[in-house]
Amino acid sequence: MKKYILLMMLAACSFGAYAQQALWGGSKIVSPQVNDDKTVTFRLVAPNAREVKVTGDFLPTQKINTPFGEFDGPGTADLVQKDGVWEFTTTSPLAPELYSYTFLVDGLKITDPSNVHQIRDVASVTNVFLIDGGRADYYKTNDVPHGTVSKMWYQSPSLGMARRLTVYTPAGYETSGKSYPVFYLLHGMGGDENAWSELGRAAQILDNMIAQGKAEPMIVVMTNGNLAMQAAPGETSQGYIAPTMQLPKTMEGSFEQHFPEVVDFVDRNFRTIKQKSGRAIGGLSMGGFHSMHISKEYPDMFDYVGLFSAAITPDKSVKSPVYENLEAKLKAQFDKKPALYWIAIGNTDFLYQANAEYRKMLDGKGYKYTYYETPEGHIWKNWRIYLTEFVPLLFKK
Amino acid sequence: MKKYILLMMLAACSFGAYAQQALWGGSKIVSPQVNDDKTVTFRLVAPNAREVKVTGDFLPTQKINTPFGEFDGPGTADLVQKDGVWEFTTTSPLAPELYSYTFLVDGLKITDPSNVHQIRDVASVTNVFLIDGGRADYYKTNDVPHGTVSKMWYQSPSLGMARRLTVYTPAGYETSGKSYPVFYLLHGMGGDENAWSELGRAAQILDNMIAQGKAEPMIVVMTNGNLAMQAAPGETSQGYIAPTMQLPKTMEGSFEQHFPEVVDFVDRNFRTIKQKSGRAIGGLSMGGFHSMHISKEYPDMFDYVGLFSAAITPDKSVKSPVYENLEAKLKAQFDKKPALYWIAIGNTDFLYQANAEYRKMLDGKGYKYTYYETPEGHIWKNWRIYLTEFVPLLFKK
Repeated sequence: MKKYILLMMLAACSFGAYAQQALWGGSKIVSPQVNDDKTVTFRLVAPNAREVKVTGDFLPTQKINTPFGEFDGPGTADLVQKDGVWEFTTTSPLAPELYSYTFLVDGLKITDPSNVHQIRDVASVTNVFLIDGGRADYYKTNDVPHGTVSKMWYQSPSLGMARRLTVYTPAGYETSGKSYPVFYLLHGMGGDENAWSELGRAAQILDNMIAQGKAEPMIVVMTNGNLAMQAAPGETSQGYIAPTMQLPKTMEGSFEQHFPEVVDFVDRNFRTIKQKSGRAIGGLSMGGFHSMHISKEYPDMFDYVGLFSAAITPDKSVKSPVYENLEAKLKAQFDKKPALYWIAIGNTDFLYQANAEYRKMLDGKGYKYTYYETPEGHIWKNWRIYLTEFVPLLFKK
Repeated sequence: MKKYILLMMLAACSFGAYAQQALWGGSKIVSPQVNDDKTVTFRLVAPNAREVKVTGDFLPTQKINTPFGEFDGPGTADLVQKDGVWEFTTTSPLAPELYSYTFLVDGLKITDPSNVHQIRDVASVTNVFLIDGGRADYYKTNDVPHGTVSKMWYQSPSLGMARRLTVYTPAGYETSGKSYPVFYLLHGMGGDENAWSELGRAAQILDNMIAQGKAEPMIVVMTNGNLAMQAAPGETSQGYIAPTMQLPKTMEGSFEQHFPEVVDFVDRNFRTIKQKSGRAIGGLSMGGFHSMHISKEYPDMFDYVGLFSAAITPDKSVKSPVYENLEAKLKAQFDKKPALYWIAIGNTDFLYQANAEYRKMLDGKGYKYTYYETPEGHIWKNWRIYLTEFVPLLFKK
């Protein structure tokens, strides 16, 4: 019977008969291995490789020369081979964080075949691992009541298309009978409706902060801000297309103009608090730009506004009524005294100066806002931090 | 401004600064490329590689020697190098299907770095592509009304644990006010609550068949049948653990015994038809085994039963009240005349004989069932076919 069970197991996991090979092929290795002292060991079985490196955001950055100048790029470290197994252990413990990495095998970038846990960021797929402790504990799935994460579609009358979004409803939503406030959470350029729930760990952060009483139970709506797309690549009738950042309809006013249709859809499909005091909007980079413009276009819609590393970079060549009369519209918005206008950025972000100028303008007008600055730049690490800082400020009465 | 926008794009997609490299590194290649004649071209930039092969279920199988005997394994094909780019085009057009593949670079199995579209099957990650036409059009996201796919958690009182499940609600569910029948759809050994929605394309199949009037609008509930897990690997407080097939609590009665708690949760959280005529249960391999046992344990619960390549292989050493008195329980079930008892299997499936014996037993008792046989074996291709055959038979009054 044992042999039979094994055969069944081998066959039961067959998707084109791959897994069978995986089960009897090669030595069993673990990679990555988070050691007790929080150092991390990476391993790869590649007896024919001549050189194996690991690269990831857990390593110090290094300068990279590009056609566009010198940039901080990800660091690399060499794996050492013994009996066909390549290995590298970090020289010091890693701080709590969600990290990403890939291998470079004879120059070819590959994901770690021993680690099925991967995240896509635009056109790049990397492996991930998490060092727990500190703020990173918000990014973990813990044994707390879990909300529901739904992928659903709304019909946009003005665009004449169905569009996909991700909705987080807090634990207990289905049966509580209560109405909830709504936080609209927007991604950056090249991202989509999956970005905040995958790279941003939004569901874990909300679950944990609500369970600890640090955040109010709320609905979080994660839209797709690229109007040239109905949904993330692979989720539309275009099929398995390659992701790209070169999308035509991202920062030209259409998304901002159509946004009340999203709010209307959410208000019709969920038990929401249908007034300004029950609505927040925030986003990263392009999503911060969108949040800034949407909140001023509709000054009675959102009481809480969050700009995370916002791309406040008006391209004068883009013509849209949304981008006209900025000062008058901001005056109208701030005259109505939003409950919170929150600006966060990293001190090495390439958008730092643009944000400083925007804050200076707000200061000059006497508009009240809250400012939060972190080290480092335009990276998901910062956006997860901003989410954990922003969410506790919302919907406090 | 153009340069600035480009810099912003480079930075905006940074998850540890990887994507920047991806954007300016290497030549732009497309892989896989589905050609007009439905041949497919695979490409890999690997100037330092000595040998590159592609392996996948689109190639004829080949015999593999293993410690457990000779098996049909996936075929391979050689890519040919020119200027550092390796390439292979299939010699003939491929039939419509969802296919999977990986590369073998100097013997190392890797996913295609040019294709972000991947599916995990237990511990193996492979790339996917789809050739449309025929039945495969059900597996595509088409421009039809889309249902909602939710990841949510139920509390099991008997197990004292929260467990994750995937729920499909049909287009219009949120606002229709109607009650819907429910189809409980179970995975195989090593799978989890993500298997049917990812490998099985269940949401696409339901969207398309409902839109074409071939299936009734229904709720589909996809559970996790491994009671040693709360959820799929990476979705629990265990963190990013490696998937395994060696789970202790899969076919020993506990899952079957606790199943009414799932039905109770669904009936309390969704607008359901709360009676036998509004419930179906079906599953693949271990999920077929579970469906067989659950439906006979609770003969008033499900009017429709589907066994897809069912692992009807009683292990006499496993003791559970669920597995005792099989014949008496089946008699009780069939005396109540289920609306449909449906058995499907591939003619090369290693479970073919066990299913033939089970059918012979049912024949001997005069119990009515419907039988559907396909070529090939214990593979997702067959399970997607069975889903498209089974779903139109459900809840027809």
